[in-house]
Amino acid sequence: MRIHSSLQKRRLAYLPRLPEILRSLTRLVPLFEAENHENELPLPVVQLFSKTIDQQLLRFVEGENKTHRPLNVGVVFSGGQASGGHNVISGLFDALKLLNPESKVFGFLNGPAGIINNQSMEITAEILKNFRNLGGFDLIGSGRTKIESPDQFQAALKAVQGLHLDGLLIIGGDDSNTNAAFLAEYFLAKGCKTCVVGIPKTIDGDLKNESIEVSFGFDTACKTFSQTIGSILTDCLSAKKYYFFIKLMGRSASHITLECALQTHPNLTFIGEEIAAQQKTLKDIVRQITDMICLRAEKKKNYGVILIPEGLIEFIPEVKTLIQELNTLLASSLPHLKEIEARPKASDKIEYIIKKLSIPSQECFSLLTQDIQLQLLMGRDPHGNVQVAKIETERLLIALVSQALAQRKKTGTYVGNFSAQPLFYGYEGRSCLPSNFDSQYCYALGHVAALLVNAKLTGYMSCVTDLSLPVEQWGIGATPLIKMMGMEERNGELKPVIQKSLVNLQGKPFAIFSQERDKWILEDLYCDPGPIQFFGARDETDQIPLTLEYEYSRHTHLSFSHTS
Amino acid sequence: MRIHSSLQKRRLAYLPRLPEILRSLTRLVPLFEAENHENELPLPVVQLFSKTIDQQLLRFVEGENKTHRPLNVGVVFSGGQASGGHNVISGLFDALKLLNPESKVFGFLNGPAGIINNQSMEITAEILKNFRNLGGFDLIGSGRTKIESPDQFQAALKAVQGLHLDGLLIIGGDDSNTNAAFLAEYFLAKGCKTCVVGIPKTIDGDLKNESIEVSFGFDTACKTFSQTIGSILTDCLSAKKYYFFIKLMGRSASHITLECALQTHPNLTFIGEEIAAQQKTLKDIVRQITDMICLRAEKKKNYGVILIPEGLIEFIPEVKTLIQELNTLLASSLPHLKEIEARPKASDKIEYIIKKLSIPSQECFSLLTQDIQLQLLMGRDPHGNVQVAKIETERLLIALVSQALAQRKKTGTYVGNFSAQPLFYGYEGRSCLPSNFDSQYCYALGHVAALLVNAKLTGYMSCVTDLSLPVEQWGIGATPLIKMMGMEERNGELKPVIQKSLVNLQGKPFAIFSQERDKWILEDLYCDPGPIQFFGARDETDQIPLTLEYEYSRHTHLSFSHTS
Repeated sequence: MRIHSSLQKRRLAYLPRLPEILRSLTRLVPLFEAENHENELPLPVVQLFSKTIDQQLLRFVEGENKTHRPLNVGVVFSGGQASGGHNVISGLFDALKLLNPESKVFGFLNGPAGIINNQSMEITAEILKNFRNLGGFDLIGSGRTKIESPDQFQAALKAVQGLHLDGLLIIGGDDSNTNAAFLAEYFLAKGCKTCVVGIPKTIDGDLKNESIEVSFGFDTACKTFSQTIGSILTDCLSAKKYYFFIKLMGRSASHITLECALQTHPNLTFIGEEIAAQQKTLKDIVRQITDMICLRAEKKKNYGVILIPEGLIEFIPEVKTLIQELNTLLASSLPHLKEIEARPKASDKIEYIIKKLSIPSQECFSLLTQDIQLQLLMGRDPHGNVQVAKIETERLLIALVSQALAQRKKTGTYVGNFSAQPLFYGYEGRSCLPSNFDSQYCYALGHVAALLVNAKLTGYMSCVTDLSLPVEQWGIGATPLIKMMGMEERNGELKPVIQKSLVNLQGKPFAIFSQERDKWILEDLYCDPGPIQFFGARDETDQIPLTLEYEYSRHTHLSFSHTS
Repeated sequence: MRIHSSLQKRRLAYLPRLPEILRSLTRLVPLFEAENHENELPLPVVQLFSKTIDQQLLRFVEGENKTHRPLNVGVVFSGGQASGGHNVISGLFDALKLLNPESKVFGFLNGPAGIINNQSMEITAEILKNFRNLGGFDLIGSGRTKIESPDQFQAALKAVQGLHLDGLLIIGGDDSNTNAAFLAEYFLAKGCKTCVVGIPKTIDGDLKNESIEVSFGFDTACKTFSQTIGSILTDCLSAKKYYFFIKLMGRSASHITLECALQTHPNLTFIGEEIAAQQKTLKDIVRQITDMICLRAEKKKNYGVILIPEGLIEFIPEVKTLIQELNTLLASSLPHLKEIEARPKASDKIEYIIKKLSIPSQECFSLLTQDIQLQLLMGRDPHGNVQVAKIETERLLIALVSQALAQRKKTGTYVGNFSAQPLFYGYEGRSCLPSNFDSQYCYALGHVAALLVNAKLTGYMSCVTDLSLPVEQWGIGATPLIKMMGMEERNGELKPVIQKSLVNLQGKPFAIFSQERDKWILEDLYCDPGPIQFFGARDETDQIPLTLEYEYSRHTHLSFSHTS
């Protein structure tokens, strides 16, 4: 049993504002946008999703007032935590109760495994009142099990039928929502009434497309990381003696790093997508950092802050090739992993594998420190891939930059002192008290999910749009999950998956960043946003992410707003 | 030039509340407490401080209104950042201007080196308005240079005389305030009018005694670390798959760790002072963690959070002995350091030194991972000691606990999964936006410093007491720096220094902690205090540290309050 802090108690009493249109909740009906996306989708998607292929984008508009039947809806958290999850549930709960007070919400425990093992609890008003507007997924827990095998699909069917569910909310990222699409199709094929609805969750910000402006949790995570980075920047400028190499969570995409850079203005920021586009090598990156350090040393500045996205390492083409070779070599079907495990000494493990690599990959592998080499040989993620998060890029870069600076010192081209601190922020931003933005966004997403189930719509993702407008003017609708699908290799097989969104190098947020960043190298234009505030002026408490503001504030991309 | 965030702009406009008595600022006069502490002090202190030995504890009381002459006062930041430093300066500035608008404040740049090198700037109202209530020491920078040699003392004398300083504020920790005491004595001996006043600064909380209830910066740092720990606890409980080993800054003393444990309730917390008192070994500590993990695994809980104070490692008696032996062996006067540096291979370095150690220290050294062994052989701090902060205790414990769990798994006494994440928080808490408590405490400390200089009092530390009462009832006074002195070994010599305060195992905060902690092992009574709030209800924004509340709320220790 958690103990609530005084601030948590205050947040429990917070009432999220709602889009104006949701005040007419009981009268809302879907309005479909006539369009045909079948031709745009890959053939395997069209073939695999024959039951849901014709779904159309929709928005909700006011219709006639009518009475609604009671609904039973299940929810599950899938994957890493993101702030706002509890508000998706409270939004769903409040909307369902408004539609019909006999409606019920069930939570599956500890992620999709709870569906497969049929472990659930009813979420009552009494329980929920202790979780409203709070961070974490601890009301019902989360997990990373995937519903993939025929047995698991069958077990899921049994579970939702056992609870007579009208709907199942899958609160997850790209993979979990891919799963949701398959479940929706499967349930329809089995004549099961349970509508599957996806909710866009991930702090990484990579679940984003023309219908989804941002995933929930991104705002709170970026604000929390920016608070810390801002504080480190101030510290750096006060003591003037350290270079902080800060790695930020976010798997492949660099959305978090871009947002935090825009909020805090560190001296140097890497965006993985740009590294890939410019075909930069590890040596190039080390040179870029070293050049900056030398330039600053000339100005007697032996301090600074460098932001590194978690996914940087795999965006470097030569490293990408190396990782692909390792992924193939270390596949469970081959003997190499066992051979490595059988060797107790680190140097023997490395020696064994290095001979199996291509010549360029051997060179790249040799550049790495032994720690990193071992990290690359260690355990895989559930997709069978190298665990990028375990690679301590921040320490690798410090080691390589130190060597490079020592070289330059010998040739007299560097005269400063280099003292570096590696930092990594990730877990710190996943379960914080949700910002007002995430609290309100999630509360609205939950309402929309209730409307989708009520309208018997399945295979949709709940959408709230026009997020750069005041909450009251937000639009609500839904987009078919399959519309987001593309083909990707997973465990060596091409599979339909919801596409991860990478940082758009042609987009406005990146344009603003690349316009500003040159000044940040030598001048210390550091900005410290401070901790998230929940009370006081709304322009302080209800700020939206800068990337969202820059991207949407002028023109609205796809708008469900009733005011537009 | 910094860019102010919207929250920083709002904080610039914040008006710290002041103790009621400071409203009569221009009428305040010192009232000395008659006491003789000469007999209680070590003889070298009495001998070294012949000019300042008779100073008495004092408090300020209302006297007659009179006019005051203009004063010139210098300030310097010494050592690590702590939130509130800028408010000491703004408190000093505002009080001086109130006493006489012709008064001036000068800031020495980048720490005590700025005094030695006579680098300073005048701090005007125009400059100061951009730093009020903001974190960091970036207005004038900080540094760790010590004023120690006769030349340095002479240079300092020249600097303060050059600026015609009536006072010099040294904002620092135990070492810097020791320095302040020597400077006060030296200035008096040289017939220099400059009064030296110390300000108790350190996030570590170890500058604390019967006159100093808490050092500034401790509150903001602990609240910031507790925000992060609280968020990690929620994350831990949501995903249920990691053990987080969190190391917290704070050098030797475990005040920060104790405060954060009281605020957040992690499953296991080590207090260095207790480890030392109970003569625990590294093996004992590893066993204690392993026992807890096994107990929790029986309840199917394969997750948890463990707090580790930065100084833990040196509190373990066997490690302490090892470190002392290493400190002696690696002294610059001996050839061993060079011998080690000359060996490129890590294993050769270790082999060389291990033979020089005592048998128990050889055993202890062999327990450590190679990384930690190398960290112990690396660079010293300015006092010539092993750099405890560089020892990655959190990673060492994870490695040792993993081994121990693997052993227990073999014997069937452990059936869980162990996945651990090392975390270290320190730099993140030093330069944050100061809490209201630190903002107000520092603003008052600055006022008191102005009063001390105005009363021509030197060798004192500014004191604000009764901090568990509402700000209006806080007491103000000062305590002679030499009263805090004891003898300690520095670089092999016994020297008078201001005593570091360790966690009092007989005190009320520790008693409450040790009463509660058993429950925290198995039950997850996690508490998430969330980010510091600056707006809204005062019982949220103006909370004081829990250790301070527990220690002082019932009886006031030494009180200068005009209401008591």
